[in-house]
Amino acid sequence: MKLVLVRHGESEWNRENRFTGWTDVGLSAEGVREAGEAGRLMKEAGLDFDRCYTSCLKRAIHTLNLALEAMDREWLPVVKSWKLNERHYGALQGLNKSETAEKYGEEQVRIWRRSFDVEPPALDPHDPRNPALQEQYRGVDAAALPLTESLRTTIARAVPYFEQEIRPRVLAGERVLIAAHGNSLRALVMTFEGLTPEQIMGVNLPTGIPLVYEFDRDFHVLQKVFLGDPALVERKMQKVANQGKAGK
Amino acid sequence: MKLVLVRHGESEWNRENRFTGWTDVGLSAEGVREAGEAGRLMKEAGLDFDRCYTSCLKRAIHTLNLALEAMDREWLPVVKSWKLNERHYGALQGLNKSETAEKYGEEQVRIWRRSFDVEPPALDPHDPRNPALQEQYRGVDAAALPLTESLRTTIARAVPYFEQEIRPRVLAGERVLIAAHGNSLRALVMTFEGLTPEQIMGVNLPTGIPLVYEFDRDFHVLQKVFLGDPALVERKMQKVANQGKAGK
Repeated sequence: MKLVLVRHGESEWNRENRFTGWTDVGLSAEGVREAGEAGRLMKEAGLDFDRCYTSCLKRAIHTLNLALEAMDREWLPVVKSWKLNERHYGALQGLNKSETAEKYGEEQVRIWRRSFDVEPPALDPHDPRNPALQEQYRGVDAAALPLTESLRTTIARAVPYFEQEIRPRVLAGERVLIAAHGNSLRALVMTFEGLTPEQIMGVNLPTGIPLVYEFDRDFHVLQKVFLGDPALVERKMQKVANQGKAGK
Repeated sequence: MKLVLVRHGESEWNRENRFTGWTDVGLSAEGVREAGEAGRLMKEAGLDFDRCYTSCLKRAIHTLNLALEAMDREWLPVVKSWKLNERHYGALQGLNKSETAEKYGEEQVRIWRRSFDVEPPALDPHDPRNPALQEQYRGVDAAALPLTESLRTTIARAVPYFEQEIRPRVLAGERVLIAAHGNSLRALVMTFEGLTPEQIMGVNLPTGIPLVYEFDRDFHVLQKVFLGDPALVERKMQKVANQGKAGK
């Protein structure tokens, strides 16, 4: 049984080094290129799917659409869920690294980025960035929507969604592709591989590189392969790690 | 209760004047432009949706994706069904008008195009174009898939799908957008407006122009409006009628 994860390519805000979280920014030209390349890699690897999942954020949705286009698989069913959204970055969303350091201090920023369970300052419920006030989440119970999230609380909504909605399908033989975000995908990797909080904080998924998991009947990982040139995969992982963009 | 229909924009094969049917060709540059414009018209008209439907063919899927992008509504749920596909054009698929006239005679071509219930020659079941042999329809009961279709048989699969899957949602208050094809949309228009076979043969839906229906509780049409410049709508309808592309 196989399952493939793809982290969206570069977004318009990655370049500006701003905390993005649930801000719905599009892909940069480089992100568009990465998405098509992810599709070509999957096609070349002979991968095919029965169903796809993505978040409610356009940088993941466009990544999926462009990858499916490159695979000639536009007709596959696609399910979109906010449970696969990026970690919500609370009141930091929209600030860049230096603005944040100025406002809160460098040490505090390091803690928000690097800790497993410390949440950034929450949005004021009246803030227009509150998901409960946004059109995008109008079908969702407002009480379920976050005003900020740590990696721990991101995991607490992404993993149950996976377990209820996706895992039974994979176990039943469906081939599933998930296009999502650094932290919602980390949540899945942590549960697949049984990692500790410390271990998952050290995992930096490269953008636009399909990660192919193979499981046995008990959902133990048999194999884990990044598609594409290993040197490029390594460079991309280093880039993510060096930029300290773990929280983005 | 509102329901909006959009016919996909110009495809790569429209220009070459070939019978397309279920051939999965992409949009031309003009078709891409039309799709974005359709989204902008809906946004300007203040339209919003809860759910979208499209076919399994990329010219309709791309039209929907591009329109949703222009509306900033990528996150809406999208359901894809072959029941909303274009009329299947049997063995004529891939031939252009003059090739077809040479092979079958002008009068016969006119009959296939203009009649309500005459089917073009069926595909041989071993023809790789047989939908039952294509990846795209691997989840579908092969016996349900056509080897050719008339407008009558197109209606016979599109309308029951609408009645079972879409109409109950519209009646329950969901705002639905359907991006599909000349003939699958004709099937819906015929049933909404109670048209005769003769009347529906005279209906030429313009490409990329959102058609907004408003219904009462008994699903009677209260209003029907094409969005955009009326002169452009008229020119597009004339273009479709003059090219005799009713069957494409």
